[in-house]
Amino acid sequence: MAEPGGDGLAFTCPVPLIGTERILLAHGGGGQLMHRLIEQVLAPPLSNAALDARHDGGVIALPSGARLAMTTDSYVVRPLFFPGGDIGSLAVNGTVNDLAMCGARPLGLSAGLILEEGFPIADLGRIVESMRRAAQAIPVPVVTGDTKVVERGKGDGVFINSAGIGLVGEGIDIRPARVCEGDAVVLSGDLGCHGIAVLAAREGLSFETTIESDCAPLWAPVLALLDAGLHIHCLRDLTRGGLASALVEIAEAGSASIEIREDLIPVRDDVRGACELLGFDPLYLANEGRFVAFLPAGEAARAVEILRQFDPARQATRIGDVRPRDETAVAMRTRYGGRRVIDMLSGEQLPRIC
Amino acid sequence: MAEPGGDGLAFTCPVPLIGTERILLAHGGGGQLMHRLIEQVLAPPLSNAALDARHDGGVIALPSGARLAMTTDSYVVRPLFFPGGDIGSLAVNGTVNDLAMCGARPLGLSAGLILEEGFPIADLGRIVESMRRAAQAIPVPVVTGDTKVVERGKGDGVFINSAGIGLVGEGIDIRPARVCEGDAVVLSGDLGCHGIAVLAAREGLSFETTIESDCAPLWAPVLALLDAGLHIHCLRDLTRGGLASALVEIAEAGSASIEIREDLIPVRDDVRGACELLGFDPLYLANEGRFVAFLPAGEAARAVEILRQFDPARQATRIGDVRPRDETAVAMRTRYGGRRVIDMLSGEQLPRIC
Repeated sequence: MAEPGGDGLAFTCPVPLIGTERILLAHGGGGQLMHRLIEQVLAPPLSNAALDARHDGGVIALPSGARLAMTTDSYVVRPLFFPGGDIGSLAVNGTVNDLAMCGARPLGLSAGLILEEGFPIADLGRIVESMRRAAQAIPVPVVTGDTKVVERGKGDGVFINSAGIGLVGEGIDIRPARVCEGDAVVLSGDLGCHGIAVLAAREGLSFETTIESDCAPLWAPVLALLDAGLHIHCLRDLTRGGLASALVEIAEAGSASIEIREDLIPVRDDVRGACELLGFDPLYLANEGRFVAFLPAGEAARAVEILRQFDPARQATRIGDVRPRDETAVAMRTRYGGRRVIDMLSGEQLPRIC
Repeated sequence: MAEPGGDGLAFTCPVPLIGTERILLAHGGGGQLMHRLIEQVLAPPLSNAALDARHDGGVIALPSGARLAMTTDSYVVRPLFFPGGDIGSLAVNGTVNDLAMCGARPLGLSAGLILEEGFPIADLGRIVESMRRAAQAIPVPVVTGDTKVVERGKGDGVFINSAGIGLVGEGIDIRPARVCEGDAVVLSGDLGCHGIAVLAAREGLSFETTIESDCAPLWAPVLALLDAGLHIHCLRDLTRGGLASALVEIAEAGSASIEIREDLIPVRDDVRGACELLGFDPLYLANEGRFVAFLPAGEAARAVEILRQFDPARQATRIGDVRPRDETAVAMRTRYGGRRVIDMLSGEQLPRIC
């Protein structure tokens, strides 16, 4: 993609493909624009097998044959503290969850802080304490860190990057491309609490009930599925872009079609009410403690039974199936018997949700 | 450090120890204030053996006995492009160098981007292309990534976090605590080019000659030292805080005293001139392709000979020795025969240098 000559760094920008010359908020939203930015600008120059798998983490083989998963996430959530969590618990759970989605036992996390000049040190202390609690609960050590400070007005309080490494057990091969006809889609719980909780805290909205973020570590329920010997084909946590965007990404990578049933998808009444009021669709809301599992349909009931033993997955349920590929990647049978085509999030729904 | 009761996140902030209630730019400068922030606020709650080693990366033992090093750095350099490098090459080389300082062969990197709304996509393309080149030169794959976008005025163009993992070879044990009496201090090259190059680009200064950043990958020269069977006790790259802060940190962790000789430390005439003009001390300037090695004095000449075979280390030289611990952690014999006590950087010299 480099032009010959010049300063050696000249670069033909794929502007026509991207459709805009400048970064928009929606490029970070987990939907179509982010997808295009990754596929057309960020990923091609850096292409390699691990990155090209487009999974929640990259998998690296060690000389011994053991496989490591590596993942990274920057957290820019606003506000920093919200019902059910804060940027610290999010930074630990979110990254551990990405490892879990690779079937990887967490070995270690890093913590990279970008602080804005003037940020209260007492708030920083609260955040680090929250990271400690989340890390101890898993348990996983934070083995290395970095601190940078930017001038007032060049940051926003604190941004946290946490990368994670984990060990992928023998025989485990979890990735979108393995999803195939005959798989069931199991959802671990109800949708949308994280998105609504953060939005309400940000905008000062209050509902009849307090909606708390679903932010939770998912390694324990995933480990239980693996220990039971179930043939997990793919796992995906439902963060930015929500259930809808995750299913579209997986269907496209796996070259299969997915059909889900609206009446089987748990959404709390207060979350549904908030969505109706605010014009959101729970299928696109971000979650920080929910995932989908793809596995042979015959194993779905056992998976649901196992998942329901864990707090963040008490409402686990089978919501759909994988069909032979047709012209629709993801479709949903609605409550009223119709068939709705599910697309990736288009535009930005809620910026800075994680 | 948590108070009993309350919301479960109450936190007694160690304000008296830190001496300020809010983050200052100097908390990111690599000197005394950053050291205090880490030792008193960030590290204690997260304490574990890997983190407590206070090395450039944390080392984790795998079940197989193999050891992994993990490191993280966020890059917030301003301007994004400067003579000799840019934020992309810095993000790759800086993180690979931290792995090298653990004696770890780089296995994979992550790339976490925090973009500001409105950032030109063509610039992003240039940066990713620069990351590609730097990664290919090592070579190391970027195995996973993340993209976040913040509103205009809540970031500064682009911040990049890159974490890295590497494999520590058998028998290698490189860390500050191993530095001991009888070690020589070998410096890999001249000081200060990165700091002056970035400052000049930021402030629009021009000198008679163009001073380019020393930004360079250091794994190849480190590997050559290891392959030669030299008994390396500690390695440290000389980034924020420069040579002086690195030596003080190592002396304190190793419980030894270090003496260096000013006349043996290479500094280019134009860098020295810029320092005199601007009131900087080359000992505290940031470098992105320079390191110190501690090893038994009898092996120093061989180390210098090996290092000089590599471009970024052509001026490698022995600059001092480790002595029995006395009241001064680090001292320098000046050109004029005096003895200067070397302290950690106090306050902020150049913010956002990496």
